[in-house]
Amino acid sequence: MIVKDYMQALGERARAASELMLSCDSASKNNALLAIARFLDEDRAIITAENARDLEQGKNKGLDPALLDRLELTPARIDSMIEGLSQVASLSDPIGEITDLKYQPSGIQVGKMRVPLGVIGIIYESRPNVTIDSASLCLKSGNVAILRGGSEAAYSNQAVAVCIRKGLAEAGLPQDAVQVVETTDREAVGELITMTKYVDVIVPRGGKSLIERISRDAKVTVIKHLDGICHVYIDDKADLEKAFNIALNSKTHRYGVCNAMETLLVHEGVAADILPRLQQAYTEKGVELRGCERTLAVLSGIVAATEEDWDTEYLAPILSIKIVDDMHDAITHIRAHSSLHTECIVTENYTRARHFLSVVDSSSVMVNTSTRFADGFQYGLGAEIGISTDKIHARGPVGLDGLTSQKWIVLGDGHILS
Amino acid sequence: MIVKDYMQALGERARAASELMLSCDSASKNNALLAIARFLDEDRAIITAENARDLEQGKNKGLDPALLDRLELTPARIDSMIEGLSQVASLSDPIGEITDLKYQPSGIQVGKMRVPLGVIGIIYESRPNVTIDSASLCLKSGNVAILRGGSEAAYSNQAVAVCIRKGLAEAGLPQDAVQVVETTDREAVGELITMTKYVDVIVPRGGKSLIERISRDAKVTVIKHLDGICHVYIDDKADLEKAFNIALNSKTHRYGVCNAMETLLVHEGVAADILPRLQQAYTEKGVELRGCERTLAVLSGIVAATEEDWDTEYLAPILSIKIVDDMHDAITHIRAHSSLHTECIVTENYTRARHFLSVVDSSSVMVNTSTRFADGFQYGLGAEIGISTDKIHARGPVGLDGLTSQKWIVLGDGHILS
Repeated sequence: MIVKDYMQALGERARAASELMLSCDSASKNNALLAIARFLDEDRAIITAENARDLEQGKNKGLDPALLDRLELTPARIDSMIEGLSQVASLSDPIGEITDLKYQPSGIQVGKMRVPLGVIGIIYESRPNVTIDSASLCLKSGNVAILRGGSEAAYSNQAVAVCIRKGLAEAGLPQDAVQVVETTDREAVGELITMTKYVDVIVPRGGKSLIERISRDAKVTVIKHLDGICHVYIDDKADLEKAFNIALNSKTHRYGVCNAMETLLVHEGVAADILPRLQQAYTEKGVELRGCERTLAVLSGIVAATEEDWDTEYLAPILSIKIVDDMHDAITHIRAHSSLHTECIVTENYTRARHFLSVVDSSSVMVNTSTRFADGFQYGLGAEIGISTDKIHARGPVGLDGLTSQKWIVLGDGHILS
Repeated sequence: MIVKDYMQALGERARAASELMLSCDSASKNNALLAIARFLDEDRAIITAENARDLEQGKNKGLDPALLDRLELTPARIDSMIEGLSQVASLSDPIGEITDLKYQPSGIQVGKMRVPLGVIGIIYESRPNVTIDSASLCLKSGNVAILRGGSEAAYSNQAVAVCIRKGLAEAGLPQDAVQVVETTDREAVGELITMTKYVDVIVPRGGKSLIERISRDAKVTVIKHLDGICHVYIDDKADLEKAFNIALNSKTHRYGVCNAMETLLVHEGVAADILPRLQQAYTEKGVELRGCERTLAVLSGIVAATEEDWDTEYLAPILSIKIVDDMHDAITHIRAHSSLHTECIVTENYTRARHFLSVVDSSSVMVNTSTRFADGFQYGLGAEIGISTDKIHARGPVGLDGLTSQKWIVLGDGHILS
């Protein structure tokens, strides 16, 4: 098989399906989602058997245990895929929503209608449940999906793809509305991210190296998330009880997540008050602290932070701490080191809260809130395909709306321009 | 001068200025716009003299008269630049607008705040008034502009740039908020469209070949407009009086514009009624008609349209006409040949109007309205930097909002995730 030809043919089918999706109603999309859920349930034995083949191959290849764990489709994970599908079915349909329809001085009525982006290419790694998760969000938002999972999950993904096709067919939707790339050849990714004629946007879901490689080589627009180097700044006007809880929760609620705090900035006026209490709490949780010079003067028994620490997403129980002169000093540090994901100020001061919200240019900017809330579900999006650290098109948690565009609609009554 | 180093330094200054712009208020931006207008007025003699140098060089180089005309800054065009600045100053500030601020079940309040994109690179050709037009829209939307005009307008653009810098300085804004690239070396464009570290978006304003070249080579996101192959479909349920007026206005109001109709699609049921009347009106206006086979059977004395005609943006008094079986046939033609700019259906039938609005995937979709209304001013945007035929980020007429992004803001009261 010539990979380029295979991908082009797949793209052509996707584009044709995306035109059919434009006239498909909410009920058909929901019926398809629920039918896919039913087929997943019915085909559990097949899916588990195919997943076992992937697991065995993975073990033979010596994949590390963490990767094998992500690869496994336990009964609970299949349940959760089924549950996810019915959740997405229950969300309201974003497509066709008309907003801002207003009369203009000429007499025409102008508004915006929400429409699908078209064809979305999703590239991901080992977890086969991402196949269902991505397919359901694309489908609900009227898009066509081309899914390219990791080669280590090929059998599992194809077994899931069969359920998807059966569900689409049952609901009368084009079966090419979701295509799972069959070849595990790397060239397929190169083709997918450059065939601008057939693909409207690429969403890579995986580790940083995957995302960097795709962003570098893509000709299609990429909605991406790179680092999550999130900061909490404790102001000297903070309520120290809130500050303590937020600093602790932002770091220790979960470690391996992009919205965990990686650097704590503390106003010098309250550092001596709050840092020793925090040190005790962090130490109890097993968090390693690395401090700036001034922090070392306040806290004993911690290591010095290097310049590299300020630019590191630990994704681990490690926290760097810096004492700053004031809010402006904190903002300067954030501008230099943030990945523009999520930043929080803890303060009771109205003017500072307002200033911080305005000038910090991250995808989420918070006042008196744990950074762990930066999440599509917490923001009320109902679902999340990822968190974008870009400014173009979609920013922060990306839900169904992030997978759509808006076109202008104009209603007249024979209006002509004079 | 090494072009790469020059552009990198310029980019670095732009990025620094864009951080300063984040804390600048509406009044300062408006003051700057009005001060620039005043300096343009005061420096008319200098601007005219510099423009004369460009014109003389252009004549010596043998530039064609149409290009020389676009290059000339007549007193009326300087007036219009001044007027444009005060119009943009009078628009409401898009930045800082908070929308959808809602309480979530957890108790946090989540909303979106409109923010500048950052640094916008604008690449344009001969018309020096685009310098002011682009600078004013970027400035008003809190962005920093890097402007790269055509080499044939270099003296004019630099004279205008001096006024811009004086205006920015007077209003206390960073002078690097608008930089006009001084080198006319082509390499500067190549650098501008690839320095993703310093530039957030590129807006090319000019002919198709310029835009295609930039889109092909850019690494920065491009907001672009390619063709305007716009269609009007006259349904058999149309009010033929409205249809006549719309078909005439869409084609003949102006020829060299992207929102002019290039192909007229007519339902076979009304073709014999309306086409002869339209032929007479078009002929009076000097419009050349090219028809499909069925059209040739209805209209005499017109030439046959070739396959190429359906894909051609004439930008001239030429119109291709096709008789179609029904609305679905019209939509099929539009899907195959439209540039996704603007399409209109003329019908009195509710169901067809609604279907056409839903399934035609162009940046503007109209019912009973001349395509000539597809314009930022007519849509109430107050200004327009261009019309995007892309689906990502900005679509159709792009006004101030199209030059912005939104970040999430989260307000809490010590909320932590449990």
